[in-house]
Amino acid sequence: MIKITLPDGSVREFDSSVTPMDVAKNISEGFARNVISANFNGVTVETTTPLTEDGSLILYTWKDDEGKKAFWHSSAHILAQAILELYPDAKLWVGPAIDNGFYYDVDMGDETITDKDFKTIEDKMLEIARGKHDFKMRSATKEEALAYYKDRNDYKVELVEGLEDGTITFCDHDTFTDLCRGGHIPNTGIVKAVKVMSVAGAYYKGDENNKQLTRIYGVSFPKQKELKEYLHLLEEAKKRDHRKLGKELELFTFSQKVGQGLPLWLPKGAALRSQLENFLKKAQQKAGYEMVISPHIGQKELYVTSGHYAKYGEDSFQAINTPKEDEEFLLKPMNCPHHCEIYNTKPFSYKDLPKRYAEFGTVYRYEQSGELHGLTRVRGFTQDDAHIFCTPDQLDQEFKNVIDLVMYVFESLGFDNFTAQVSLRDPEKPEKYIGSTENWEKAENAIINAAKEKELNYVIEYGEAAFYGPKLDFMVKDALGRSWQLGTIQVDYNLPERFDLTYKGSDNELHRPVMIHRAPFGSMERFIAILLEHTGGNFPLWLMTEQAILLPVSEKYENYGKKVLTLLENHEIRAQIDNRNETVGKKIREAEMSKVPFMLIIGEQEEKDGTVSVRRHGVGDIGTLTMEAFADMVKEEINNSLQPFNV
Amino acid sequence: MIKITLPDGSVREFDSSVTPMDVAKNISEGFARNVISANFNGVTVETTTPLTEDGSLILYTWKDDEGKKAFWHSSAHILAQAILELYPDAKLWVGPAIDNGFYYDVDMGDETITDKDFKTIEDKMLEIARGKHDFKMRSATKEEALAYYKDRNDYKVELVEGLEDGTITFCDHDTFTDLCRGGHIPNTGIVKAVKVMSVAGAYYKGDENNKQLTRIYGVSFPKQKELKEYLHLLEEAKKRDHRKLGKELELFTFSQKVGQGLPLWLPKGAALRSQLENFLKKAQQKAGYEMVISPHIGQKELYVTSGHYAKYGEDSFQAINTPKEDEEFLLKPMNCPHHCEIYNTKPFSYKDLPKRYAEFGTVYRYEQSGELHGLTRVRGFTQDDAHIFCTPDQLDQEFKNVIDLVMYVFESLGFDNFTAQVSLRDPEKPEKYIGSTENWEKAENAIINAAKEKELNYVIEYGEAAFYGPKLDFMVKDALGRSWQLGTIQVDYNLPERFDLTYKGSDNELHRPVMIHRAPFGSMERFIAILLEHTGGNFPLWLMTEQAILLPVSEKYENYGKKVLTLLENHEIRAQIDNRNETVGKKIREAEMSKVPFMLIIGEQEEKDGTVSVRRHGVGDIGTLTMEAFADMVKEEINNSLQPFNV
Repeated sequence: MIKITLPDGSVREFDSSVTPMDVAKNISEGFARNVISANFNGVTVETTTPLTEDGSLILYTWKDDEGKKAFWHSSAHILAQAILELYPDAKLWVGPAIDNGFYYDVDMGDETITDKDFKTIEDKMLEIARGKHDFKMRSATKEEALAYYKDRNDYKVELVEGLEDGTITFCDHDTFTDLCRGGHIPNTGIVKAVKVMSVAGAYYKGDENNKQLTRIYGVSFPKQKELKEYLHLLEEAKKRDHRKLGKELELFTFSQKVGQGLPLWLPKGAALRSQLENFLKKAQQKAGYEMVISPHIGQKELYVTSGHYAKYGEDSFQAINTPKEDEEFLLKPMNCPHHCEIYNTKPFSYKDLPKRYAEFGTVYRYEQSGELHGLTRVRGFTQDDAHIFCTPDQLDQEFKNVIDLVMYVFESLGFDNFTAQVSLRDPEKPEKYIGSTENWEKAENAIINAAKEKELNYVIEYGEAAFYGPKLDFMVKDALGRSWQLGTIQVDYNLPERFDLTYKGSDNELHRPVMIHRAPFGSMERFIAILLEHTGGNFPLWLMTEQAILLPVSEKYENYGKKVLTLLENHEIRAQIDNRNETVGKKIREAEMSKVPFMLIIGEQEEKDGTVSVRRHGVGDIGTLTMEAFADMVKEEINNSLQPFNV
Repeated sequence: MIKITLPDGSVREFDSSVTPMDVAKNISEGFARNVISANFNGVTVETTTPLTEDGSLILYTWKDDEGKKAFWHSSAHILAQAILELYPDAKLWVGPAIDNGFYYDVDMGDETITDKDFKTIEDKMLEIARGKHDFKMRSATKEEALAYYKDRNDYKVELVEGLEDGTITFCDHDTFTDLCRGGHIPNTGIVKAVKVMSVAGAYYKGDENNKQLTRIYGVSFPKQKELKEYLHLLEEAKKRDHRKLGKELELFTFSQKVGQGLPLWLPKGAALRSQLENFLKKAQQKAGYEMVISPHIGQKELYVTSGHYAKYGEDSFQAINTPKEDEEFLLKPMNCPHHCEIYNTKPFSYKDLPKRYAEFGTVYRYEQSGELHGLTRVRGFTQDDAHIFCTPDQLDQEFKNVIDLVMYVFESLGFDNFTAQVSLRDPEKPEKYIGSTENWEKAENAIINAAKEKELNYVIEYGEAAFYGPKLDFMVKDALGRSWQLGTIQVDYNLPERFDLTYKGSDNELHRPVMIHRAPFGSMERFIAILLEHTGGNFPLWLMTEQAILLPVSEKYENYGKKVLTLLENHEIRAQIDNRNETVGKKIREAEMSKVPFMLIIGEQEEKDGTVSVRRHGVGDIGTLTMEAFADMVKEEINNSLQPFNV
């Protein structure tokens, strides 16, 4: 008899040689139908592997990342079999599961695969899948493995040669055999939907001096519906790609001459940024923050003091020399050292704290050109940064306040699906962290209390804290269900020490303040990218830099247009007028393209009645309203989505 | 007989050997009494120098810079004589006139001069002055000059040795003789008031390896009253020194660690900057500008294209290297190249122009540490920059619009005393300038027409244009009568060429747009420094980041204070409340120090009546007003000084 411990802590006893699938069935037949892979004592096993000792068992379904991995890994086997059946001279190299599916690298010899062949490959894969063939692992000696691949596949021979005898395993299913470490779904029949996504060139072993193989990308699902949904999501994501939308909406651009990863904000993008910044500034002012401004460079010494130089120096933009003096400057990778120097300008007493210094600070960090991506991975970006300097006793309240602010920001921008991660010390390695145990406990409790009190959906991760303090990170899910890491709140005991920051306590002695780093958006660039992908460019009405556009049906109504414009301006509704000598149809089409929420068509009847004919972007005509009624409607929508920030 | 041409173009005939003073007397005895120096055919002469040929004569009085120079140069002779009479072992080196007076460098041997000795020196100088001794120039051979100084003064021997025989002249007055090139007032008696300002160390020949001499600074005037005024002005200027005020008002600071010349804006300074920026943004938006945002670095190639690298490369911050790739970046010294790349993002037709891109762009230019000065000479500063891209035909209107904007800015900020300089081509050197003659004429006419139409007080300077286009610079006089160069408007034919900027004309052909660079403030840093020195920190009410402060006489009135605060907030009046447990006297003193315009004292009576007792900064009590009446008064003052910008 062996004892099997399940993730919920329960223990069940079985005869030795029970398989994970047996355990699943023991739990329930219904559950077992969904189990597709397993992990025993931290090692991936087959669902058919006999378990012969006590241990912990995790059973995965399609809903788990590990389950998907097994599913796609197994699908790669099916793809390989299909390729060999369709192209008998093809030589396989390797084929792993990846984040969104799987691929196989193949030497196609004289053959080529184009998108015209995808359907044939998919059909062949489905045919194999329908055979419900079991995946069966078996061990082999190195000699056996070499013998199998000799004359059959030189790539695999080379692969086997690199392996140690006694560790080599194969996986067989149907007529197909592959060198494999394991981790499969029970049988091919579970794969109900497959799609070959693309083919690309890939150098053998990733070395560009080697032969180029064909990499065939695929994805598979347990249900046809899921594939359909996935392909729809991909289409949507493509439409919402912030690089595409940024161009279409004329928000930002990049210039080869200015340099890669250095965005240039075009008028509409700069206006959007300004709206977002003003929104946060207003909330921050209410929350007692003070804006400061610091330069974009600092002496090397500043970053030696802060420790950033030791950490980033080599991999970052190099030092800026000066022509005549012995000074070296660095582009600032962070705003915190500057804010510490601002704090150090004058002595503070505990009565003056907290000091909350905020800055939309543009920082520069070197990224290799291959890693750059639109606005999400850039070389220069503007943090919505702030540093709070407080006493250890104030940490609790400050943390709550920051969470309030972050949640206000998320909710005002339509991110209502977010989770949080609390990163604490590794309790077994106290020597890794600076600052007193007493202060750490204060800080960790402050974060946990705040997360609880604010009813955050959070998880605690031990050992994930930075060496200088614990932190709280926010993840949001966008409209397509994708996760993004956004705002962060970090406690820091390190910089106050390094910059010798002090305040005079009620005991008249000097003490170290605690520092909180926080950025609800993270960076303006990244946030706007995510917001674009989340909303597809249809931002909340309050954020649209152009909320309405007036479309006179002819020049005759220009004057009435101006009158409407003035009324809207008085109601602080941002509107423009399209006075061009074009048809209303064309004006509407262009306005729809630029995603202006409201198009107001005005002609003879509207002028006579003092009304506007309202068309809503993506919806269509919503009727004729008086100017005032329209203004009220807009203001109501704005007031509903953008509450004032209450502290 | 010789013909003497006077600056007004009139010509008078005199016997040869007439002196400038004779000519002055010929004009009028009254005028002659004020003449103190002269220039003949472009060469400085004595008022007693016989004129022996036809030529142009300029006669200077104290009002002219050249007159002051002669006055102070002559005063340096008197200082030197006084020093030798008081300290017979002192050895003179040289003593020129400077911008505000004069100095003399002296080897004092074993003696020292301290401020206790200033009075004695001044008295001796006045005693000499009262002697009404004529300044008389005479030539000497090198041999004679060397013989005179041998055994008397080794410094002068070395000086003479460096001179060419035949060019050596002395000036004698009273018992004193000095090697001198000339340019004196008629006699010492004109000097009625003298002041020794300070002493400082100065290395012989400015070389720190040489002996240190004593530099004695002085200033002198034709009237005692003028000295008094000057000293008063100096006191005022010291009080208004923006570095002192910036510290007192907690506007900005510098940090050794961040680096010299890199200002850190403290909360109150950042708020002030933000007020100013918002003020200009609002006016610019009305004037059809669009804000853009560009990074603070650019690839070297960008500045090679723009020509800035060739011009500034060596003397500026050096290139920023990257760890892994062959790219070099530069801190941006100007925003224009970035804005050209923004213009280049999409094709424009003549109907789309003008495009007006504005940015508060922070630029970095290397200055040697010795040249840095508060906020007026820094290494990083934020330009209120904008670039207008227009057709040559639009230049006229655009120039007028920019002048309107600049004048609006100056007037809203209380700079009502300003002049302008129009810098045009040197008509004799057309080859120095790029761009077609036709376009230059258009541009120059546009500037002159605009300056005329806007009734600017302007002068035209030929040959002062940049090679790439003509310009218009504004000078303002501050409250102490000091001149500052502020806003600039420049036409540029060069960058559109270098960046290959185009627009499609009505002829369907591609044309080059003209570019206008303009910055009404110049830079935020420099402008705020000047505004501080101009106003002494008492900014126009609309600009004060704190317009009123509520001072409850005790804690009992805190609630009423909040009520007043809410009312003021609703009227968009920026106010704070000082709820500290301090006496009203102390609260008032501190509020006066921080220059808050209105102090509102509230106690029992005020709460009962719904009033506030108003105290104005620098004025004192101005009576008790209802809350509403106070709000109205403030709003009226603001509306009077800050009109909306009308386009």
